[in-house]
Amino acid sequence: MSETLDTATLDALAEHFDAVLLDVGNTLVVEAEPGTPVGELVPEPLPGVVEAVRHLASRRRVGAVTNAAVMREADVRALLARVDLDRHLDVVVTSADAGAAKPDPRPLTLALERLGVAPARALFVGDRAADEAAAAAAGTAFRATDAGLVDALVRAVVSREGAFANAAAGIRALDEDAVHAAARRQGVLTKPSGSLGRLEQIAAQLCGIAGRCPAPVPTRPAVAVFAADHGVAASGVTPWPQTVTAQMVANFAAGGAAINVIARQVGAAVRVVDVGVAGDLGDVAGVEDRRVRPGTADLSVGPAMTARDARAALDAGAEVAAALVADGYDLLLTGDMGIGNSTASAALIGALTGRPAADVTGRGSGIDDAMLDRKTAVVAGATERVAGYLDPTSVLAAIGGLEIAAIAGFAVGGAAAGVPVVVDGLIALAGVVVGAALVPDLPARCIAGHRSTEPGATVALDHLALAPVLDLELRLGEGTGACLAVPLVQAAARTLAEMATFEDAAVDRGPAMP
Amino acid sequence: MSETLDTATLDALAEHFDAVLLDVGNTLVVEAEPGTPVGELVPEPLPGVVEAVRHLASRRRVGAVTNAAVMREADVRALLARVDLDRHLDVVVTSADAGAAKPDPRPLTLALERLGVAPARALFVGDRAADEAAAAAAGTAFRATDAGLVDALVRAVVSREGAFANAAAGIRALDEDAVHAAARRQGVLTKPSGSLGRLEQIAAQLCGIAGRCPAPVPTRPAVAVFAADHGVAASGVTPWPQTVTAQMVANFAAGGAAINVIARQVGAAVRVVDVGVAGDLGDVAGVEDRRVRPGTADLSVGPAMTARDARAALDAGAEVAAALVADGYDLLLTGDMGIGNSTASAALIGALTGRPAADVTGRGSGIDDAMLDRKTAVVAGATERVAGYLDPTSVLAAIGGLEIAAIAGFAVGGAAAGVPVVVDGLIALAGVVVGAALVPDLPARCIAGHRSTEPGATVALDHLALAPVLDLELRLGEGTGACLAVPLVQAAARTLAEMATFEDAAVDRGPAMP
Repeated sequence: MSETLDTATLDALAEHFDAVLLDVGNTLVVEAEPGTPVGELVPEPLPGVVEAVRHLASRRRVGAVTNAAVMREADVRALLARVDLDRHLDVVVTSADAGAAKPDPRPLTLALERLGVAPARALFVGDRAADEAAAAAAGTAFRATDAGLVDALVRAVVSREGAFANAAAGIRALDEDAVHAAARRQGVLTKPSGSLGRLEQIAAQLCGIAGRCPAPVPTRPAVAVFAADHGVAASGVTPWPQTVTAQMVANFAAGGAAINVIARQVGAAVRVVDVGVAGDLGDVAGVEDRRVRPGTADLSVGPAMTARDARAALDAGAEVAAALVADGYDLLLTGDMGIGNSTASAALIGALTGRPAADVTGRGSGIDDAMLDRKTAVVAGATERVAGYLDPTSVLAAIGGLEIAAIAGFAVGGAAAGVPVVVDGLIALAGVVVGAALVPDLPARCIAGHRSTEPGATVALDHLALAPVLDLELRLGEGTGACLAVPLVQAAARTLAEMATFEDAAVDRGPAMP
Repeated sequence: MSETLDTATLDALAEHFDAVLLDVGNTLVVEAEPGTPVGELVPEPLPGVVEAVRHLASRRRVGAVTNAAVMREADVRALLARVDLDRHLDVVVTSADAGAAKPDPRPLTLALERLGVAPARALFVGDRAADEAAAAAAGTAFRATDAGLVDALVRAVVSREGAFANAAAGIRALDEDAVHAAARRQGVLTKPSGSLGRLEQIAAQLCGIAGRCPAPVPTRPAVAVFAADHGVAASGVTPWPQTVTAQMVANFAAGGAAINVIARQVGAAVRVVDVGVAGDLGDVAGVEDRRVRPGTADLSVGPAMTARDARAALDAGAEVAAALVADGYDLLLTGDMGIGNSTASAALIGALTGRPAADVTGRGSGIDDAMLDRKTAVVAGATERVAGYLDPTSVLAAIGGLEIAAIAGFAVGGAAAGVPVVVDGLIALAGVVVGAALVPDLPARCIAGHRSTEPGATVALDHLALAPVLDLELRLGEGTGACLAVPLVQAAARTLAEMATFEDAAVDRGPAMP
């Protein structure tokens, strides 16, 4: 991805903010040595900044707010003019102008007053704790420039209010103390050390998620099956008619689909959520209506949906997760239904991992060679169209799907609620790839239920560094592979929690293993 | 393996039979063209026959019984004398001598009268339906020479009475009609054809085992954990003291081991069976006592046990399986406990697959490089000692273990009772490799629960053409990997039995898949 702001990110910024305020040193230009005389200051713009500010200014008000002992607005403008930054700034405020220095909010407040923008509609970008504190005191959003201005702006887009944003903000790294405690406990249980293999790793992950060892054994799993239609289904990428999405939703509601049968087997509740079915669901009971729009547009000819739609679907998924956890479910499983969704998923995985279309495109629910060629071409065209997009939500909107967005939100929602999220195959992994791009700590709280036969699934698993629990050559979706992994996840937690120790059982200790 | 009879097989034959009667044409010598004048007959012994008859005659009474229009005893003896076969025959009877031709039993009865041997203690080997009918009428055992005399004698050893023999005789090939019906049904269920991957294959296998489609969904699984000690544990192949076998049996009985916890998770009953623990189990309740002997002898210095012990353990396993099925359990899982048993298992797998020791020997419950070298040398020595053994039971006795024998019997017992048998890792696979050598149709009725990290397990899986359900890097044994596969086997059966069809659910049909 490039260092420049794409149109989609600019659109999203413009939607959320009426003004963007920028610190100067370390945000716009290289910070000068402390004590450098004003006359010796040589402005050196940071990479991508001049272009980013120009783009920002084309859409919204832009200002600079800097702490400066003696310099005032005119001094700073003169300096920035030497690198073509001054003319894009609608306002410049120094601490000397405001009579107070950040973390006092007054410099920011003064700038916003002069722009006529409410603090809630403003974003401040800076590099110091004093900048963050000033933003908080002034009531504006804040992003740090750790990874540059462009990155800060992209992250600002995804950190707005809403269920998804709230959930994303609540996700922390795993509790390493609990992870280590799990490893120690495995060593004193009555078995050769390490002999439970992957179950021991899963048990440790569950401890890291729960923040204690042993982790509670999940006993109330629930799978949310998000259903939506895809405009690309009309472009010859699937032999199944789009009507099948609504028909299968009815089948889910009636309990006759594979996910129903498998969920019954493993004791999981099934929630069916319409986030974008195109067809009329009629009088089907038991389907939660969170339809954002009746299917996406055809991603092979234009954007699948708007960024606003994508965010609505992300929020819907996060809200469903939060509601399930509030209802006492302690293990969330992702499910999906949507004719055409393997095309959108392959495109998203290709775009967000940088892998070529041929590596991520498969036969989905069953297509011949000619259709596979067409599908691969559609995926290639889609990934090309979003090359250079920095904002994952914009990529999702351009070439994704509503149920994929909902799954991303669902995974983030579950992770934020502190429960493990078991991820299904290709479509779910596309959602988690999007989620991980927005929330880097997400994958550590996910368990890959299985390895689908779809090539894109394996690309996504590798990208997310997730090792699947099962490898049963499944390619059905609906959450079937996630559901099938449930007893194994439960067994991982249960062995750690319930096995006797060598001491308890008076069994002689064997060798410690490395 | 060679074409000659080994001592162990001769011992077993001698134990079961006081006399072996042999047909002449196609059993001892190449059959002459019908109508060849007696004077033109040129006897040509079949491969290995002269040596086999000499060996048999060194231990038990041997006779020839042949249908011949005009030849009498002296004529046949004169003919066989030309190829050194006559002098080993204690009796020769022709149909002309007896006044009746096979399938009339009189030629056999006359031969046994002259030898003074009861029919129940005699074996007749021949090539025709008339030979088999005559043996049945005379009350002797019968084996066909389809694969030569030596093979017939080896099979005769394993086909004697007892729970194992009875079970082995009852195992048929899978019901192909039910297998095909399963495939057809998968094609009309509401999912893309083939999209349930391995589950569809397992469902078809379950139908083949049950003899109907859909197969019943197994709801009452039971794992039998067979425990026994191994003399080889004293030879530096394991760091665990032998006392741990009995301690872990107590742990199983108390419910604190991994198998107990995992069985609880999947709803499986646990039966603990002592078939050869060396230590005192004291007052441990809940352990079924079928101890054949208190552990094997050290297979690195001599036979692990007698063929009689091995058969007793095979019978014990078959009896446990039959009892569980009689109690209503409908899915049998193999389990094991025995310090040192990975050495015996590797040796059996190496011997019966012909693979070198280095390919089948692993680190078991956790050993260092020096110990692995020692273990590999023990396995190499053991397989070398049984090279040329034709009788799998003799191989089992020489280098196997009591719980391994019991598992072989258990698998055969379950298969005979018509229930699926889920096989655990290395030790269980060694048992099934033995079982398959005795009962070629056994593996088709087994489901490999998982792929252990032990190299011998993968060699055995390949040899048996079994694809494991799970691959979780387990190496614990006890039946843990078999238990973990239970919900997946149930899900395979349940999806086939309970999913709606396209017609039922009014879902539009997608494409048929190849």
